[in-house]
Amino acid sequence: MTAAPPRGFDAAEFRARTARAQTLMAGAGLDAVLLTTEPEVRYFSGLLTPFWQSPTRPWFLIVPAAGGPVAVVPEIGAGAVRATWLPDVRSWPSPRPDDEGVGLLADTLVELCGAQARLGVPMGAETHLRMPLVDYHRLLERLPGWSVADATDVVRRLRMVKSRAEVAKIAHVCGLVSRVFEELPSRLSAGMTERAVFRDFKIACLEAGADDVGYLVGGAGPGGVADIISPPTDRPLARGDLLMLDTGCLFDGYWCDFDRNYALGPPGDPLKRAHAALYAATQAGFDAARPGATCAEVFHAIAAALAAAAGDARAGAAVGRMGHGLGMQLTEWPSITPDDRTELVPGMVLTLEPGLEVGAGRAMVHEENIVITDTGACWLTRRAPADLPVI
Amino acid sequence: MTAAPPRGFDAAEFRARTARAQTLMAGAGLDAVLLTTEPEVRYFSGLLTPFWQSPTRPWFLIVPAAGGPVAVVPEIGAGAVRATWLPDVRSWPSPRPDDEGVGLLADTLVELCGAQARLGVPMGAETHLRMPLVDYHRLLERLPGWSVADATDVVRRLRMVKSRAEVAKIAHVCGLVSRVFEELPSRLSAGMTERAVFRDFKIACLEAGADDVGYLVGGAGPGGVADIISPPTDRPLARGDLLMLDTGCLFDGYWCDFDRNYALGPPGDPLKRAHAALYAATQAGFDAARPGATCAEVFHAIAAALAAAAGDARAGAAVGRMGHGLGMQLTEWPSITPDDRTELVPGMVLTLEPGLEVGAGRAMVHEENIVITDTGACWLTRRAPADLPVI
Repeated sequence: MTAAPPRGFDAAEFRARTARAQTLMAGAGLDAVLLTTEPEVRYFSGLLTPFWQSPTRPWFLIVPAAGGPVAVVPEIGAGAVRATWLPDVRSWPSPRPDDEGVGLLADTLVELCGAQARLGVPMGAETHLRMPLVDYHRLLERLPGWSVADATDVVRRLRMVKSRAEVAKIAHVCGLVSRVFEELPSRLSAGMTERAVFRDFKIACLEAGADDVGYLVGGAGPGGVADIISPPTDRPLARGDLLMLDTGCLFDGYWCDFDRNYALGPPGDPLKRAHAALYAATQAGFDAARPGATCAEVFHAIAAALAAAAGDARAGAAVGRMGHGLGMQLTEWPSITPDDRTELVPGMVLTLEPGLEVGAGRAMVHEENIVITDTGACWLTRRAPADLPVI
Repeated sequence: MTAAPPRGFDAAEFRARTARAQTLMAGAGLDAVLLTTEPEVRYFSGLLTPFWQSPTRPWFLIVPAAGGPVAVVPEIGAGAVRATWLPDVRSWPSPRPDDEGVGLLADTLVELCGAQARLGVPMGAETHLRMPLVDYHRLLERLPGWSVADATDVVRRLRMVKSRAEVAKIAHVCGLVSRVFEELPSRLSAGMTERAVFRDFKIACLEAGADDVGYLVGGAGPGGVADIISPPTDRPLARGDLLMLDTGCLFDGYWCDFDRNYALGPPGDPLKRAHAALYAATQAGFDAARPGATCAEVFHAIAAALAAAAGDARAGAAVGRMGHGLGMQLTEWPSITPDDRTELVPGMVLTLEPGLEVGAGRAMVHEENIVITDTGACWLTRRAPADLPVI
């Protein structure tokens, strides 16, 4: 196991995140931003807990126009949040469905910003509001002098560009999962079911140092994979199968997201050609992913390489994009699509994810993780071999 | 490993769930219910995928007043949803932020229910809307003749009462994790860090047959646990510690949720008394959890037993309740609180979770899982030993 980077972040990093948010908020005319989802609350507080699995209680974090963020959380979380850098943590006894933090939240907002203010709430693409809709309406009723505006751009712009400490966490989990993938052939045996392969892979990732294996999809099938989002079946691996595993593992709350393909027995020419085309397309995406390029340009570079290498094979297929952002969520802004004009800047962490249809209802997908630096892209994963590995 | 129950459900079960929903919808005057979150979509479709980790794309499921549910999903999921029992699956190319399924969803609702109808959306306690708020507002703008009402009660009433097949999945994961807890002392050694204990426990659960360890909190501390929702630290176990692990493991998409306590070295009288009080309180909750009793009555039975056994120790503490529902989510309705008047009926699966403060900022919490049957409660977990186990 390579040495793990330190856990958590310095308070200086949280202060810098808050200051950058406040600059963006000033530009957008927002007096406060209300955050309700796990990655946003964690981004500004450092709170890392699996307790978000419980939908019973909402958690609120307010970024005011000036001063530190204020947490408004259920009592069960007050101790954990007080252990973060946040100086101002308020709590209510929960569960209490009649007033599940709404009154305290409204009072806190008025205390911070007055009776008339403009509240930012992330409402745009890839966001949601993690609180009951009736409680959101109750909150707005308690703030009659306030207006509400979309704050997606504030969190999107901040979170898309990772700090060195964030990149180090992603690089670490990418590295340890790369090794698990490299050693996978020695762990597999003929007749293992998909389910056994998945279980063994999860154990291997934990043994290698991943905190959790939060995402694992894929499977095996003759000449390609039929479904790239489903859990495993009890079908045994068979000669002639393509085996694909696509995983998101976590280190200190940061994800990797990449896959590997394996041929069971010597692959036919179509699979070999498809793998070579995906490898070349990934390289083309890597070469195009330089500061100043747009996501759309990276998309077209990948698509052109796929078309050149794969001839008439259908590129992209149902995945709908050629990669995406990566960080505290398995997938984040931006998207590598023809329509995403986001300009790449150093610190962005992306997946490159070209896919091909390799037969009726059968696909091959390849995925690597990169970070944008001043001089171009840098691999976070150790690349898949150029030739499809054979088991 | 005990024999696992079958995966998935018969189409008959999904038809029965749909029919029960439609009966409740008729009573509430709803022409359609719109569902956006993982457990609700799975409840009516059977779709099981970790792809919900990606926030990029919303997923929609409509339960109309008559006929089968209709799925409106991104293309990447269309194949997986078509493999379920659902006869009507529609999809759009995604990601497409300008119209992320909203147009197709609006058209589908109008096709099903006409230009004027009443739409149910879960908006109440423990729910949220998993789609961007701007897209929700766009949807309502495209349905000018429609009104919207809270449909929380429809999904709450259905999901609170589990079928035999659902209970079998929960019982299975409770059983295998019970065994992992029983064997834990033999896996532990002095000097292991909390983090190593957590990692080892996760691997043991996977080896025992859990599909995933989606939740693990707890830790160790002298004379009690300081924080019951945080991830592990690098602190080594030490003689005199109380070690608590609270886990949610998954089998076929259903959770267990219970904990176990261990003393490192012979415990002092306060810990022994606290464990005995929690054991007695759990028994009192079990005895009270009969069909026809309310959650509030179960709460008071547990609280009275705690008070009798623990004297002036502070009961309940910051957890805020004495247990909760359990199923496709780690915590579900109802809550075992003084205010929850939900009447217990056969098929409800609950946790019993009394807690005590055992010193300044130190707690001991105990948790077991039960199912309500015609004749009373039945344990799903194998009970913790009456005496605090010593390592």
